[in-house]
Amino acid sequence: MSGRLAVLGAGAVGRSVVELAEEYDYTVTAVADSQSAAIDAKGLDPEAIFTRKDADGTVGDENPEAALDASYDVLVEATPTTLGDAEPGFAHVKAGLEHDRHVVLANKGPVAERYGDLMELVTASDGDIRFEATVGGAIPALSTIEDFGPGHITAARGVLNGTANFILTRMAAEGLDYEHVLAEAQDMGVAEADPTFDVEGTDAALKCVILANVLSQGEQEFALDDATVDGITNVPGAALDLAADDGRTVRLIGEASRDGIRVGPRLIPENSALAVSGTRNIVQLDTTHAGRLNISGRGAGGPETATAVLSDVGRLL
Amino acid sequence: MSGRLAVLGAGAVGRSVVELAEEYDYTVTAVADSQSAAIDAKGLDPEAIFTRKDADGTVGDENPEAALDASYDVLVEATPTTLGDAEPGFAHVKAGLEHDRHVVLANKGPVAERYGDLMELVTASDGDIRFEATVGGAIPALSTIEDFGPGHITAARGVLNGTANFILTRMAAEGLDYEHVLAEAQDMGVAEADPTFDVEGTDAALKCVILANVLSQGEQEFALDDATVDGITNVPGAALDLAADDGRTVRLIGEASRDGIRVGPRLIPENSALAVSGTRNIVQLDTTHAGRLNISGRGAGGPETATAVLSDVGRLL
Repeated sequence: MSGRLAVLGAGAVGRSVVELAEEYDYTVTAVADSQSAAIDAKGLDPEAIFTRKDADGTVGDENPEAALDASYDVLVEATPTTLGDAEPGFAHVKAGLEHDRHVVLANKGPVAERYGDLMELVTASDGDIRFEATVGGAIPALSTIEDFGPGHITAARGVLNGTANFILTRMAAEGLDYEHVLAEAQDMGVAEADPTFDVEGTDAALKCVILANVLSQGEQEFALDDATVDGITNVPGAALDLAADDGRTVRLIGEASRDGIRVGPRLIPENSALAVSGTRNIVQLDTTHAGRLNISGRGAGGPETATAVLSDVGRLL
Repeated sequence: MSGRLAVLGAGAVGRSVVELAEEYDYTVTAVADSQSAAIDAKGLDPEAIFTRKDADGTVGDENPEAALDASYDVLVEATPTTLGDAEPGFAHVKAGLEHDRHVVLANKGPVAERYGDLMELVTASDGDIRFEATVGGAIPALSTIEDFGPGHITAARGVLNGTANFILTRMAAEGLDYEHVLAEAQDMGVAEADPTFDVEGTDAALKCVILANVLSQGEQEFALDDATVDGITNVPGAALDLAADDGRTVRLIGEASRDGIRVGPRLIPENSALAVSGTRNIVQLDTTHAGRLNISGRGAGGPETATAVLSDVGRLL
């Protein structure tokens, strides 16, 4: 199944999509970052693009917006997630759908913050959208919900942020405090210099908003304001010690259903399926007729997230 | 998405497919068991059919073969798995494909034992086949392999037989011998009167054969004879005690790759994702670019397996 991709965003995910595309029999005809774009209807050479980007910070000679008018079958939106109006990601998706092209998102912003607007654009377009990469990286959560039918999933919950989970896992294993483990995670590149988005639960909440929007099938629209969110910054090391004495541990659990969204640290049994370790993620789906499904895997990372993007492309073409 | 289903087989799985079809917006136009068939192009009433079957053992007044000529969009093959020539299941699938209809299998026989023959029929037909229900019940193993692309999965392994896993779990938890726990499982209806198929590893091996056929994408055809299979009948209770002293346990693990198939009892860490409890199943997929995925859930049962069948129907229509 061949096809042409325009990739917006040249961070870890966009770069991996471009680098892996050929292995999936896709041709990349445009790549853009916030500064520049490279466009070639016959197909771009990933190595040349990223050698240039590493050298001078640009991917090509064109303006970024030019990528939206390139020849492509699927637009891949992999620019950074922004909150509120979800721009410029939303404008990119809009342009793709208005060109009657398919769009695959790795950017959570448009799906979490402007789901209704997005669905209106889809309805008016010959193109469709998919966004598996926005929830749990490589974990096939949304595809499974789609295959089962959203009406046959009563609730979704899980560990949806690898940084927070890494910190809780290390705190429990080493008996260390939050601040100490955070500094260690920052040294290792697992946590960002400003970890707010991950440790305050915002990232997990956005994923739960997306899950809730998919589960409610447009009957109700959810956004970040609808979520009740607690992070892990106030979890004392002593709480993890006490939990361990009782065969339990603490995980930052996000929960989504048609009734709402909440994210917070929860006490769970150490042998629970939800007790994944380190940066791993898990999504647990409660089904109407098939019990509970658990799907765990790598929730972030360039090639991992790109794999979800390329699976979505395959479902669309 | 509406559609008409002809359901062959009126055991636990076929019955659940018929009973749940309406909830998925499908109409059942034919149901057959080995004795009889009920056919109505306007749609059958599940309650009437199974009240009759419970009373006199028949589902309707027609011959079973008549169901193959009914009006339907998707044929569901849910008759018992048979080995060797995989009949009569294979003939049913052949008839459906020769009518240019889609076919969904819950019956492992044709997919495990005659994969090449099946693919030839698919090539010659306007219909397609799917068989998610044949591996791990409700677990979306084959759909995930398809979405990732079989070429991007290097190996699949897992706990694929709930009866064997129930027995091993109980032996470890209670310190009991195989024979004792088997008798208990038979009393509970978890093991059949003749448990050979489950406890000797044949059922898990068939699932691995199917996984290997999907992973090899027709480059090589696997059948049961290609599998190296050991069951759990010779696992002594003492082995589980020794394993537990070392933080380990024993599970009947099936492994499939393009290089072959093996099934046997393996020593694994108690906190391994593979150490699912009771009748639960797990499928673990090694991917080229996205690390390891674990998918666990109910591996058997009427409504659970029917859910996989109905998801497949949704992908085909």
